[in-house]
Amino acid sequence: MKYSIFGESHGPAIGVVLEGVPPGLALSLDAIRFDLSRRAPGQSALSTARQEADEPQILSGVFEGKTTGAPLCAVIENTDARSGDYAKTKDLARPGHADYPAHVRYAGFNDYRGGGHFSGRLTAPLVFAGGVAKQLLAQKGVSVGAHISTVYGINDDPLEDWESLRACAAKPFPVLNDDKGAEMQEAILEAKNEQDSVGGAIECAVFGLPPGLGAPDFGCNAEGVFSQHLFAVPAVKAVAFGAGTAFALMRGSEANDPLYVDGDGSIRAEQNCAGGVNGGITNGMPLVFEVTLRPTPSIARRQFTVDLAKHENAELELTGRHDPCVVHRAVPVIEAAAALAACELMGI
Amino acid sequence: MKYSIFGESHGPAIGVVLEGVPPGLALSLDAIRFDLSRRAPGQSALSTARQEADEPQILSGVFEGKTTGAPLCAVIENTDARSGDYAKTKDLARPGHADYPAHVRYAGFNDYRGGGHFSGRLTAPLVFAGGVAKQLLAQKGVSVGAHISTVYGINDDPLEDWESLRACAAKPFPVLNDDKGAEMQEAILEAKNEQDSVGGAIECAVFGLPPGLGAPDFGCNAEGVFSQHLFAVPAVKAVAFGAGTAFALMRGSEANDPLYVDGDGSIRAEQNCAGGVNGGITNGMPLVFEVTLRPTPSIARRQFTVDLAKHENAELELTGRHDPCVVHRAVPVIEAAAALAACELMGI
Amino acid sequence: MKYSIFGESHGPAIGVVLEGVPPGLALSLDAIRFDLSRRAPGQSALSTARQEADEPQILSGVFEGKTTGAPLCAVIENTDARSGDYAKTKDLARPGHADYPAHVRYAGFNDYRGGGHFSGRLTAPLVFAGGVAKQLLAQKGVSVGAHISTVYGINDDPLEDWESLRACAAKPFPVLNDDKGAEMQEAILEAKNEQDSVGGAIECAVFGLPPGLGAPDFGCNAEGVFSQHLFAVPAVKAVAFGAGTAFALMRGSEANDPLYVDGDGSIRAEQNCAGGVNGGITNGMPLVFEVTLRPTPSIARRQFTVDLAKHENAELELTGRHDPCVVHRAVPVIEAAAALAACELMGI
Amino acid sequence: MKYSIFGESHGPAIGVVLEGVPPGLALSLDAIRFDLSRRAPGQSALSTARQEADEPQILSGVFEGKTTGAPLCAVIENTDARSGDYAKTKDLARPGHADYPAHVRYAGFNDYRGGGHFSGRLTAPLVFAGGVAKQLLAQKGVSVGAHISTVYGINDDPLEDWESLRACAAKPFPVLNDDKGAEMQEAILEAKNEQDSVGGAIECAVFGLPPGLGAPDFGCNAEGVFSQHLFAVPAVKAVAFGAGTAFALMRGSEANDPLYVDGDGSIRAEQNCAGGVNGGITNGMPLVFEVTLRPTPSIARRQFTVDLAKHENAELELTGRHDPCVVHRAVPVIEAAAALAACELMGI
Repeated sequence: MKYSIFGESHGPAIGVVLEGVPPGLALSLDAIRFDLSRRAPGQSALSTARQEADEPQILSGVFEGKTTGAPLCAVIENTDARSGDYAKTKDLARPGHADYPAHVRYAGFNDYRGGGHFSGRLTAPLVFAGGVAKQLLAQKGVSVGAHISTVYGINDDPLEDWESLRACAAKPFPVLNDDKGAEMQEAILEAKNEQDSVGGAIECAVFGLPPGLGAPDFGCNAEGVFSQHLFAVPAVKAVAFGAGTAFALMRGSEANDPLYVDGDGSIRAEQNCAGGVNGGITNGMPLVFEVTLRPTPSIARRQFTVDLAKHENAELELTGRHDPCVVHRAVPVIEAAAALAACELMGI
Repeated sequence: MKYSIFGESHGPAIGVVLEGVPPGLALSLDAIRFDLSRRAPGQSALSTARQEADEPQILSGVFEGKTTGAPLCAVIENTDARSGDYAKTKDLARPGHADYPAHVRYAGFNDYRGGGHFSGRLTAPLVFAGGVAKQLLAQKGVSVGAHISTVYGINDDPLEDWESLRACAAKPFPVLNDDKGAEMQEAILEAKNEQDSVGGAIECAVFGLPPGLGAPDFGCNAEGVFSQHLFAVPAVKAVAFGAGTAFALMRGSEANDPLYVDGDGSIRAEQNCAGGVNGGITNGMPLVFEVTLRPTPSIARRQFTVDLAKHENAELELTGRHDPCVVHRAVPVIEAAAALAACELMGI
Repeated sequence: MKYSIFGESHGPAIGVVLEGVPPGLALSLDAIRFDLSRRAPGQSALSTARQEADEPQILSGVFEGKTTGAPLCAVIENTDARSGDYAKTKDLARPGHADYPAHVRYAGFNDYRGGGHFSGRLTAPLVFAGGVAKQLLAQKGVSVGAHISTVYGINDDPLEDWESLRACAAKPFPVLNDDKGAEMQEAILEAKNEQDSVGGAIECAVFGLPPGLGAPDFGCNAEGVFSQHLFAVPAVKAVAFGAGTAFALMRGSEANDPLYVDGDGSIRAEQNCAGGVNGGITNGMPLVFEVTLRPTPSIARRQFTVDLAKHENAELELTGRHDPCVVHRAVPVIEAAAALAACELMGI
Repeated sequence: MKYSIFGESHGPAIGVVLEGVPPGLALSLDAIRFDLSRRAPGQSALSTARQEADEPQILSGVFEGKTTGAPLCAVIENTDARSGDYAKTKDLARPGHADYPAHVRYAGFNDYRGGGHFSGRLTAPLVFAGGVAKQLLAQKGVSVGAHISTVYGINDDPLEDWESLRACAAKPFPVLNDDKGAEMQEAILEAKNEQDSVGGAIECAVFGLPPGLGAPDFGCNAEGVFSQHLFAVPAVKAVAFGAGTAFALMRGSEANDPLYVDGDGSIRAEQNCAGGVNGGITNGMPLVFEVTLRPTPSIARRQFTVDLAKHENAELELTGRHDPCVVHRAVPVIEAAAALAACELMGI
């Protein structure tokens, strides 16, 4: 299954084409709508005020409620685009954004309105694609969940099991420990009040992957496959599996996960520092990783930058609607990317 | 340029085929031998005692000293393989290694001797491929360097410029601050004495990449391209660009790199939290990332595991030659992976 | 540039996503509409009576009339779908069609109405994609043209130059020799009157390709690249370059194209048996090939087949609207596939 | 399974790396040697006098006689290279050869000796790769065979079944009708006596492919997959499936293959004009195709050409060892390409 996402923030529509979808899946649009609503803006003071229905329309690949196996195209109309907000700053490269490298890459022809094809809004079709992937994985007993692990240095509790993640998905602010979640939300609002934004991290786990998926080699490596999907999510700057960066503080005797034969005859590990992958191949333990997301670059504070048209130094004061934090909205997006990666590994 | 690495630790030879090498490069084998020697074992008490010449033989793709543009195959013979060391533990899955998932993935047919195709020895052809890539990049004014940033929690100084990395490459233990390097080496020897191993991290930078390479989309994203190359290096468990995991502690006003027009008219950033990439596209600043490497899983201590033949719990005491730390030997390997990724981004 | 075509004959819409379109192309929709009209049905007794506007709507990738470099999605609504025509024969596999293998491949879930995703209607988005490709090629001095070379054994005159093909494009029945074209049309109408259909062939040429594109190896070979695009066009069953199947009747002394230095200093061949490709690489002569198209399988005559639901022998009498010949409508489609292949070779 | 072929005619060795080989295949080298001997030169007056053992040495991917699933590299040493034959004509582009386009493509750096990477000798590693593919297919009940269908206009009998092709494989000149074969051989020798060469065609069939492999779309289409493998074989200029170019002379009522339920309950066709593929998907009938091979371009006659160094017109008289016809030697090569294509379709 491959996906191609298209669209711009202020164009007529955004969407995705999925190729290689297995036929016969009774696609639940409600499940996809639920994930889209978790990603949707405009739900609280923590997010941008942009309001859109994000109702996907399926153009192909589904017949009588079931996937046909032909390419599946879904589009979402853009209905609340206010391009006027962007015109006056269109030549001022927003620091932390792709404006300057995109200007070079696309020779000045990219659609600047609302970030164009770089907009976080493009994660809606990714959530759609991930929703299809999740339903295909569910048929094989594989499930994906995630929680906010950090916002501005405030950490959630460590992840324990699938049930706790499932409970998370229903929360407007998906953390395991709601007290920590309240602290995080305060930090976000404080940043917002100071015309600033904050970064954070999301921990995600894929449960039920069988052992033996992937290979050590370039292109088939399980961690490589996941990371390529994850870095395609805007704002992701780091991907770490299992103990992750803490491996640099550890000894082998701590990091090695002892193996044993479980009661049901399966081979399991007593701990999961490896995050479910050894040598590029899944080992049957949950595949666990953490992604770090940079703070939203769009902030209202005055910033120093360059005017790309005049090619001279300039100052920028952004107006318009911005997220002081995207971490909570990114949780279903990371799940979607993980689900697509898991499908790739499983040969779906 | 694509590469295919082949070989097993105790087979007749290991090697690599490079497809799409541009024609006309006067290939310096000495430069490649230098990088191979930086990776080579047997040089001090810090590494495995295995000694091999690692002399690459070119079978194709070079004619009269220059690349022809046809596929380039280089092989390195295996000369110091002692398979006897491995036979008695062949059914005991080494914790932290790929033994168990490989047993599932390859249905028990993989070559178990010395890790087979999973051996760190397979990084020698990767260094060869990276050496070709480095020479191609040099023609375009692009250079790659790396240093050990952490061993067992001991940190090197922060990276400043290309000159400091170039000086690093000549050191047997490549750090910027040799006092820190001495501490790290002590930590490694201490672990070795306690029949243990340690993990660490490597910081790598690519200098001279022009702005405008990559795209936001899956498959072309600069960070995704790099990460897929980097996770194909054994032991790498985390990849972080620029400020990396520290973004989760930051505000936008700190994380945004202000832009300015430099004296030569180029657009630059006052700091490089982004690590040279915004929105998946290079921005002309050095592309900087850090990888975390897990502690070597092969340790001499008694460990709990499973006998894969008998499918029952077992204990394992490894003998043979092992590295108490692979971080210092991995420095040229990470440079190689980064050089191959940079070539991919530049369309070489 | 990659393309993904989606849609079914009787779904809400068909379309295409083009990834990797170079930015800054002032896209002429009129040129694309012209090619779409050449492909369109309902224009004479030679084609199906289905009538559709085939007006493409661009959802993304074009801003202020120019391509942005972001994925370009165009959709065409289905407006004249009469599904009722197909319901009663839905379990009867049409001989010569993909009904039976698609039933196996898609486990019975494919959209059977009007051929679903297999419909010739899906060549409309291919013509759109090819139209973008043609405009990109024109910027590089490369042009693509085609004519009907055979219908039911009646041959057009041999191709001479680009001007004759350009004149062809404006004709409702694109042949070089209109007398031959009249004979072909008679053969088509005769077949139609006898509730039958006819096959034919199209000769296509790409002018202006520079020498040195492609490589001998699998995956980069110029003829392999073209053939993969061409066999993706429905009804194409043979692809032959240059002298094609006549090479089997020839000697080397006839088949070898003697080279000479032309007045402008370029190296050219005195004849073009090679069809512009030697050893998988373009040689600067026009790239010329012929494709053979099978007769339309949908015919009104009674045919023997299998009822896929009952898994028993059956007879089939098709009603509905069918083309007695698709060769003339396929001319712009073959041009489109050739233009996409030429872009791939040129690295566009 | 992917393959990368490397090597030059007069370099140290040629070879292939196969990635994605399923583990556990007990590889028969004897079967591969048999196919290599069918391709080998020096066996009669019909072929070049070059004599080489073509003994493959396996460097990786096989352990204790079985494939491991890791990349499999096999090399064949070049032992009978006489580079002197080529030096004096190295700047004279041989008409019909890739010399001129390769000179452009590789900027003059390609190895000119004996055709370098373009040499027909590179089909030996392709036969090796195809031999592995054949053995993998045999495990699934799929077999591949081919015969010479035409040499210089002389046609063999039409193909009937697998048994006749199997008998063919053992013949030094693989035709179904040995009388026709004798005529063909006369034509070859006559051409040779006249310092000329001849072209021909090979018909190939894959038996036992299940229905439902492939898809209509670009990149997955069964005919597209086969054609890309086939056009990577040197000298192939046309590929036609089933009735092939004869479809241009046919009506739908002749071309449509009526379906019926066979005695064993399987759905079959009464004839096989489609060559086993409808709409890009296999239909369970034998997949049958014909490839046309151009006459060997290396002929001893005086030819007009260009001196690439002096960039002026020149005359060329080739000496050295050449094949007056490559069709008979190409039979196992086409089988190999077909086997690799069949593996790709089957997801092996």
